[in-house]
Amino acid sequence: MKLSKNVTAMQFSPIRRFNGYAADAKKAGKKVYHLNIGQPDIVTPPEFMEAVRNFDENVLEYAESGGDTRLVNSVIGYFSRLGVTLAPEDILVTNGGSEALQMIFTSILDKDDEVMMAEPFYTNYHAFISAASGKIAPITTSPEDGYFYADSAKLEAAYNERCKAIAIVNPGNPTGCILSKEDMKVICDFAIKHDLWIVADEVYREFVYDGKEMSTFASFDEIADRLVIADSVSKRFSACGARVGFAITKNKELQDGLMKIAQGRLCCPTLEMMGAASLYELPGEYFNATRKEYEERRDCVYDGLMKIPGIVCQKPGGAFYIMAKLPVESAEDFLMWLLTEFDDNGETVMYAPAEGFYATPGLGKNEIRIAYILNQKDLARAVELIRIGIEKYKAEGHK
Amino acid sequence: MKLSKNVTAMQFSPIRRFNGYAADAKKAGKKVYHLNIGQPDIVTPPEFMEAVRNFDENVLEYAESGGDTRLVNSVIGYFSRLGVTLAPEDILVTNGGSEALQMIFTSILDKDDEVMMAEPFYTNYHAFISAASGKIAPITTSPEDGYFYADSAKLEAAYNERCKAIAIVNPGNPTGCILSKEDMKVICDFAIKHDLWIVADEVYREFVYDGKEMSTFASFDEIADRLVIADSVSKRFSACGARVGFAITKNKELQDGLMKIAQGRLCCPTLEMMGAASLYELPGEYFNATRKEYEERRDCVYDGLMKIPGIVCQKPGGAFYIMAKLPVESAEDFLMWLLTEFDDNGETVMYAPAEGFYATPGLGKNEIRIAYILNQKDLARAVELIRIGIEKYKAEGHK
Repeated sequence: MKLSKNVTAMQFSPIRRFNGYAADAKKAGKKVYHLNIGQPDIVTPPEFMEAVRNFDENVLEYAESGGDTRLVNSVIGYFSRLGVTLAPEDILVTNGGSEALQMIFTSILDKDDEVMMAEPFYTNYHAFISAASGKIAPITTSPEDGYFYADSAKLEAAYNERCKAIAIVNPGNPTGCILSKEDMKVICDFAIKHDLWIVADEVYREFVYDGKEMSTFASFDEIADRLVIADSVSKRFSACGARVGFAITKNKELQDGLMKIAQGRLCCPTLEMMGAASLYELPGEYFNATRKEYEERRDCVYDGLMKIPGIVCQKPGGAFYIMAKLPVESAEDFLMWLLTEFDDNGETVMYAPAEGFYATPGLGKNEIRIAYILNQKDLARAVELIRIGIEKYKAEGHK
Repeated sequence: MKLSKNVTAMQFSPIRRFNGYAADAKKAGKKVYHLNIGQPDIVTPPEFMEAVRNFDENVLEYAESGGDTRLVNSVIGYFSRLGVTLAPEDILVTNGGSEALQMIFTSILDKDDEVMMAEPFYTNYHAFISAASGKIAPITTSPEDGYFYADSAKLEAAYNERCKAIAIVNPGNPTGCILSKEDMKVICDFAIKHDLWIVADEVYREFVYDGKEMSTFASFDEIADRLVIADSVSKRFSACGARVGFAITKNKELQDGLMKIAQGRLCCPTLEMMGAASLYELPGEYFNATRKEYEERRDCVYDGLMKIPGIVCQKPGGAFYIMAKLPVESAEDFLMWLLTEFDDNGETVMYAPAEGFYATPGLGKNEIRIAYILNQKDLARAVELIRIGIEKYKAEGHK
């Protein structure tokens, strides 16, 4: 029996596919520090479960395809605090930011259309775009220049006539890069010039450090008709398991396209939308403590990485990821070795190898993504394990 | 800004797109009996919310992409009571049966591949198959022959070389048809002959009446390698708002393809999977009362419909839908009239017009789908409203 070309071309998630080896290491009694997945350890605000527990209907019914009204209104309130005015029809509730992205690419891409994206990019964009029969047109960046890409010359070099959209993750996953207002303007002008959709993945919007202000492409009026935002409660409120996200656009045709797909899958889970509404009703100050904690963690990981001879890494300004180039030939081989052969006092560490975050073959082989989602003590130890691991790996003759 | 051809070709759900008119009718003070959507009024077993309320982790984390282990095991237990042996890797938990179907068609269809389906079919198959760049190859059936299709000559007539799969909804939505073991064998043989995938949507498995036994394509060993089942808690346990479904297959390559897509969207909601596990742990007797209730409702609706002069309708054997041909020219025009101009003592009625359930243009214009998901008193009244409506509609000179 044959599978479709699109699915055959898809890869397993490089973030998740080493999970089996990690499970084996744990079975063998090792402690594994997980830096591979963006699963925060920050407590989910108790308001979420409170709202869920208060559900008292006898029948758990279908919701409206576009989403629960109270949730939509609470999202409007949240954006108004950012100075952005939204109407209810601008917002579609989705099963996580992931479904928003699937729906968006299905709505805008024909077969072999391309989407410009800075590489390294969040690896699941491969799956979203391939499932919609599209391809990624990579804007190649490098660890040496801090993965910067908001530059007209770089953008023009990556563009071709099949490009229908530019997708931006800001703050960046996996790079932690943040765009300044000027950077965002460069991208807006470029998208207008080439008549591209702008797909803005802003799920890490609050996670900006060093006193920088958070931003959104929604504040650029000149692109309102070509902008669609993918958003999510997952990282913002440490509620990844809720699977509540949003596709937000003022383009009426795109709203209709998204709604047709949304009606096909009927609706999002009722209880989770109630919980999510309570999260969006939290005051803006909620984020301050979380932001401070992540900023300290970033510094902790960065300081630890800087102790590794030969590492290339620039301090990122946002999200909760750091990309680094390791002084080894293959970050995947090194990870396998860490999970299967190495331990230091019974402990080892797991990161996401970054090759799967690139579209250009051969790039990223010795790069890794670290998600700093553990407490600082564990983070420091985890990065120390990478350092000790590299020393031992090299001492054993590996390259 | 342009949308994709696939989404442009998609339609809004004919089940949901009249909702605005129904809302207006309600605002104007009318009572609207809803026969248009398969939203049961049966109480969701309290075990669901109990499991959800008992969640006591501090962080609502991502689940595994394949689904919660306890839920997967409870589904294995449920199938073993049907005489079917499943392994954990055969089962992928999805966001409702809808996501299972989206993933399945994305996994097996290339552009312009076709899926054989008896028409009328559950209208959202249009969306699932179009989003995967495929088309429906309809096996046309008629109200006069009770929408029967499990016949080799009919199947051969509908087949063409682009067909990659045959999709079966059994018991049928929207027809309520059920397949005998012999009917299922005809379909299995046909699929083997033409090397087709069998996509078996069995979400109404328990809803079979007149003492018939429930069945599953999983009991036919000869098609194990070409079978994928879409399943769901929605109807089975009256938990539509939970959005928990399953894609079940023993084909290893298809399992891998589905998992790649599943990893892209990370996971299903944690809480809902816990609730669903409790539902699957209910004893088999749970279904007896529900089955009896629906059987009585079916009889009630059927008896009511038989009082309408000129109606064509055969008593269905399963699910909770009845299709009927009305003595009007356009079921959509008549529905608009019912919602905007008609009332009887302040009451009116809403059904799903069936044109959108057909792939062949021009078919189904005067057919409707009724979901018998109200109590018998309301059902009798709702069908009476259709009868009174038709009388008045015709008396006003409409055709």
